[in-house]
Amino acid sequence: MKLSQIFTKTTKTHPADAESVNARLLVQAGFVHQEMAGVYSWLPLGLRVLNKVEGIIREEMNLLGASEVRMTSLQPKENWLKTGRWDTFDVLFKVPSQTGKEYALGSSHEEIVTPLVGAYVKSYKDLPVAVYQIQTKFRDELRAKSGVLRGREFGMKDLYSFHSSQEDLDAFYARVAKAYMRIFARCGLDVKMVEASGGNFSKKNSHEFQVHTDAGEDMIFTCENCNFGQNTEVATVKEGDVCPICGGVLNLKKGVEVGNIFDLGMKYTVPFELGYTDSAGSRSPVYMGCYGIGTTRLVGSIVEALHDERGMMWPREVAPFAVHLVSLSSRDEEMNARIMSSVMELYENLQSAGYEVLWDDRDASAGEKLADADLIGIPLRILVSEKTLRENSVEWKERGVSEVKLVSVEDILQAIEVFKK
Amino acid sequence: MKLSQIFTKTTKTHPADAESVNARLLVQAGFVHQEMAGVYSWLPLGLRVLNKVEGIIREEMNLLGASEVRMTSLQPKENWLKTGRWDTFDVLFKVPSQTGKEYALGSSHEEIVTPLVGAYVKSYKDLPVAVYQIQTKFRDELRAKSGVLRGREFGMKDLYSFHSSQEDLDAFYARVAKAYMRIFARCGLDVKMVEASGGNFSKKNSHEFQVHTDAGEDMIFTCENCNFGQNTEVATVKEGDVCPICGGVLNLKKGVEVGNIFDLGMKYTVPFELGYTDSAGSRSPVYMGCYGIGTTRLVGSIVEALHDERGMMWPREVAPFAVHLVSLSSRDEEMNARIMSSVMELYENLQSAGYEVLWDDRDASAGEKLADADLIGIPLRILVSEKTLRENSVEWKERGVSEVKLVSVEDILQAIEVFKK
Repeated sequence: MKLSQIFTKTTKTHPADAESVNARLLVQAGFVHQEMAGVYSWLPLGLRVLNKVEGIIREEMNLLGASEVRMTSLQPKENWLKTGRWDTFDVLFKVPSQTGKEYALGSSHEEIVTPLVGAYVKSYKDLPVAVYQIQTKFRDELRAKSGVLRGREFGMKDLYSFHSSQEDLDAFYARVAKAYMRIFARCGLDVKMVEASGGNFSKKNSHEFQVHTDAGEDMIFTCENCNFGQNTEVATVKEGDVCPICGGVLNLKKGVEVGNIFDLGMKYTVPFELGYTDSAGSRSPVYMGCYGIGTTRLVGSIVEALHDERGMMWPREVAPFAVHLVSLSSRDEEMNARIMSSVMELYENLQSAGYEVLWDDRDASAGEKLADADLIGIPLRILVSEKTLRENSVEWKERGVSEVKLVSVEDILQAIEVFKK
Repeated sequence: MKLSQIFTKTTKTHPADAESVNARLLVQAGFVHQEMAGVYSWLPLGLRVLNKVEGIIREEMNLLGASEVRMTSLQPKENWLKTGRWDTFDVLFKVPSQTGKEYALGSSHEEIVTPLVGAYVKSYKDLPVAVYQIQTKFRDELRAKSGVLRGREFGMKDLYSFHSSQEDLDAFYARVAKAYMRIFARCGLDVKMVEASGGNFSKKNSHEFQVHTDAGEDMIFTCENCNFGQNTEVATVKEGDVCPICGGVLNLKKGVEVGNIFDLGMKYTVPFELGYTDSAGSRSPVYMGCYGIGTTRLVGSIVEALHDERGMMWPREVAPFAVHLVSLSSRDEEMNARIMSSVMELYENLQSAGYEVLWDDRDASAGEKLADADLIGIPLRILVSEKTLRENSVEWKERGVSEVKLVSVEDILQAIEVFKK
């Protein structure tokens, strides 16, 4: 895609919500636009990242055998009364209708998915069931802050699983935990799975997936050696303690929770009478688990974890484009024509080879183009100019690596192939 | 995909909202689940259709050079006050927050997109701009009816374009009209583009895209010969009149509006001060158009237009799967093993060849499996049974065609290739 075709522009001005690094960089690079506190629209470059994150999650959910659905944001008040959460879920938006009714605005979907699955599950033969969606959630936070990390409207993947036994739920829970670690690794994040309290959801087994960053709102004890971790909210350890797993030292760090998994037991299946008939013909309630990943928060966490003073540094699998192609014009008309023909050929060749290319074709200065490339943060920058063409080469620069080198025009495709591996 | 892996089931019971054919069939086949009047969740089979419809729309929008974004559902009250629609848009949900604020819940996005684009457009060089999204909309309808044709929560593609002149807007408007006709044709629908009133939006140029079906709420005069049509709301003609274009006879028919396009003029750009500087340095307001397609309504319209007494009849480009593979078991154990190995091989081969296959692998009767295949409505049904295998063949049946024929196992891939063209 040509940068001139994207209607957004980068800006040097810090946005109002400048307390958070993710909001500042995402807004300055034109990835998102703040509509109100905690409410962001996703613009072409940002939506590309979000789509890639969603794609990774979708792949991993499908590998778990989960079925994708799209549940509703408007939810019946009766369902929330039934679980007792209409009055206790403190961030629930309640939407009045001119029909005289009142709806819950989906901040979570247990109240929808449980009766939905209950409409189809009758016998042990119908279990297990796992369904997920990637969808917008709404939460009436008193204070929306930290950019896209804690919003009133945000993207979330929520998976729900239903089982005929605790053992089956436990086994699935463990498979989800592994899938989550793969998802976060593919997003370029070093994430710890830590023991956590269930919050509003549950007092049973639950784990959080925490990225260490100073933008985090959670305090986590983590082992310097192994994967052990505990949220301070539930901690049985303290800073400087010896790790109960490996004997290493425990440190206190700030973290952002990018995912969580809960054993819900029968908390929702009992009120919605979601039961099954076993092989002997007797009825039991279904065991249920729920598993969330904040998709927009995940994008914000990547920015918090991976940036420098110049801008964002996207990991390859979630970068909006694979290659940032920069062409610099020359004052010499003939040379300019040669640059244009070279860069157009490169643009076509890279795209034919299957690479997503952002070509900065604007009439802007070298300084502006290079600053924007650093801000936008695509992993590989390739520059074509009078200087490089005199060497029959292009300039190769990886984001986050200071070295700049020349690669000959003939070798560029092969070099990218190696780089992408 | 194996049908046994999908948690939904078909049902013979007519749902409560049985006034509409689309709701009845979509619910009975397990494509959607009604949460409340006018509020439907999309289940695995239904979501596949919706994703295909969205994919077609996305392709055609990208061909127009439009950029995809994802705007917000929570919208500032101030923006709606600015356009005067806070008090006049009769189906606007208003969401109170515990912060004391009140939000509009997105039923349309002019109040978001206009200032958003205004943040980036300064000069004539920044125009034209076209942005679109595919997203959930909310409307507080007094009476939600007609299944997924008129809901309180529904999917919509909304495109907005911004121009420096009326001529440029007119040219883009005409290109969108053509793209819309392609989209509806690819969805298997015969759609008329008719002159329409602007409703709440505009009194300028506007057109509706109408599918003829008795489930429609609109009354349309259409020419029996040419493409001329007028909504009765704005009609200058009456039934039996001579068509002003071709001299044919005008008939009155019921229609469902699956899309609409509006020349908004400066209705939104003036209140949001979205202007541009021309080459001479003087400021003018920007010209704006908006273009909608109801995505969930489009799926419902396909059902209304294309079904028979047995069930739905999906056009190829939007069918949830290309092939519905049915295996019937035999009482003979050896033959049963042969059927299973044949059908598994066919299932693998078809998928390797790039076809999406739904394999009814359930332990169910022939009558049940064939009735479900008709209800679900995939264009091609392939049946493997003792009877067909004795002829070294499979049974070939196209949905909506009464003829059933045998195709030899070796020829099946080639036959499908021909059928798909």
